[in-house]
Amino acid sequence: MTASSTKKIRGVLSPVVTPFRPDLSPDADRLVHHCRWLLSNNVGLAVFGTNSEANSMGVEEKLELLDYLVDAGVDPARMMPGTGCCALTDTVSLTAHAAKLGCAGVLMLPPFYYKGVSDEGLFRSYAEVIERVGNSALRVYLYNIPPVSQVAITLPVIERLLAKYPGIVAGAKDSSGDWSVTQSYLDNFSAQGFDVFPGSESFLLRGLRHGGVGCISATANVNPAAISALHATWNDPGADEQQARLDVIRAIFAKYPMIPALKAAVAHYSGDESWTTLRPPLVELSSDQRQQLLNDLAAASFAMPGLSAIDGDYRAL
Amino acid sequence: MTASSTKKIRGVLSPVVTPFRPDLSPDADRLVHHCRWLLSNNVGLAVFGTNSEANSMGVEEKLELLDYLVDAGVDPARMMPGTGCCALTDTVSLTAHAAKLGCAGVLMLPPFYYKGVSDEGLFRSYAEVIERVGNSALRVYLYNIPPVSQVAITLPVIERLLAKYPGIVAGAKDSSGDWSVTQSYLDNFSAQGFDVFPGSESFLLRGLRHGGVGCISATANVNPAAISALHATWNDPGADEQQARLDVIRAIFAKYPMIPALKAAVAHYSGDESWTTLRPPLVELSSDQRQQLLNDLAAASFAMPGLSAIDGDYRAL
Repeated sequence: MTASSTKKIRGVLSPVVTPFRPDLSPDADRLVHHCRWLLSNNVGLAVFGTNSEANSMGVEEKLELLDYLVDAGVDPARMMPGTGCCALTDTVSLTAHAAKLGCAGVLMLPPFYYKGVSDEGLFRSYAEVIERVGNSALRVYLYNIPPVSQVAITLPVIERLLAKYPGIVAGAKDSSGDWSVTQSYLDNFSAQGFDVFPGSESFLLRGLRHGGVGCISATANVNPAAISALHATWNDPGADEQQARLDVIRAIFAKYPMIPALKAAVAHYSGDESWTTLRPPLVELSSDQRQQLLNDLAAASFAMPGLSAIDGDYRAL
Repeated sequence: MTASSTKKIRGVLSPVVTPFRPDLSPDADRLVHHCRWLLSNNVGLAVFGTNSEANSMGVEEKLELLDYLVDAGVDPARMMPGTGCCALTDTVSLTAHAAKLGCAGVLMLPPFYYKGVSDEGLFRSYAEVIERVGNSALRVYLYNIPPVSQVAITLPVIERLLAKYPGIVAGAKDSSGDWSVTQSYLDNFSAQGFDVFPGSESFLLRGLRHGGVGCISATANVNPAAISALHATWNDPGADEQQARLDVIRAIFAKYPMIPALKAAVAHYSGDESWTTLRPPLVELSSDQRQQLLNDLAAASFAMPGLSAIDGDYRAL
């Protein structure tokens, strides 16, 4: 299978945090609201990422949310939903649906239950999904996040996939947290049109200077304008200072469990406390942690301009 | 919620290997056939375990297989299906269905995508499932397998769950591979009626001598008669010799990736090659590995008496 030609999604994307109702069901209206705010800050939508608690949701829940977003007018060309599950059939369902809706791409975890899997097994996992989806408009971004998935996507696997599915295997997000891995992806594959997104804005400028195309970062949920501004102006003289300011904010969030901290910030700055709800096994920040986080952010003159609580009846969006 | 009183499942159980068709769909008839052979060897059915490739299947596939087994006359009182998924909603669906069908219990992994989760988060995960299922006949066996799940079930979590859901939290399978963990479960909780199954027959005799109730072991798929015989006669003088013979067979399988090795053995001894099929990311043994495995088994006078290929049209079971 070869790819059809379309413009690829680049720049800054956020694994969009998922709001839950008190009964822990996904709150689609609040999700649309947050997506719109991110888009207004030039941040694309990697919905269903690690920081979206995507793996705490079932396939049906994600299919419904994706439909809801598109029905609400959120542009699929700005979306790269996470679709990689443990089960082949689940990954195929989500990926096929995302491609059919016209999503710019999908961010695909390897199957992550079994550990110590072979390169052959990893190659087969991705190849089988691509074959079954059978859509030349599909763009697969490989999601390397061994600190969480415990399954690394190696260079030989990428090489085989690129050779077999040129264009369809479109890039990767590297959340290894190890620059040498990101650089190895860039050095080996970016010349072939394989787009590499570091998994944090900490590596945004360094990535761009080495052929990267942006970043996909948890903290783009809370600091989108500043991160996308660096992407837009990284050739300007002030880029290193911009990067340093991003790093200050990132470091504050990194002191806490990331997802609860992101949700606490969204809750506080929007004035909408419902954002603090998480699905087990995650738990909200303690009140001490939250106060410390907010103090640190205030001391850094952090703000989330334009963020608001959702207005009126969520049903009447 | 408190438990209703029924006799608990004990003894030797097997995480039943799942046969797949060439298109990788689950082969329900072959699964029934293998389950019947295991039952005829006094081995209970921990279907949908790690060695069943359960997490390579979707929830709908597992719900259908479970229905198929029960419809085919496989006794749910001899079944302890694995029901723990990453997503709360998936775990609830599977668990509720298993309880409704009258399964003796469910073997529940913790949510395993997020790492470094807190005891509070783990407690909430299990508690939320139990509350939502809301069936006093439910028996939950906690599945501790940190080498794969990377999420350990700690003593404080078990203690809280037992205090809140006595009887419903019925026991655990410990696949840590570390006897000291199994012993800590036994020492702390077996007096409260919490049934502990080591995750390998290597610990069967030692477990029984310390208050354990059996084992749930991958290799019970291939060596069920000998393993269940030790459980039945562990107070007899020859028990240590029996254990030593079990260990010889276990050690042969443990030299290879376990699931492909089990399937290769079932294929060889049944004469049904379709058993070698695995879902990605797992891959079959190489022909060299398979030959070495079969040579080693032959040298140990290993056999699988009564195992046969499924007869005739699978549809006409």
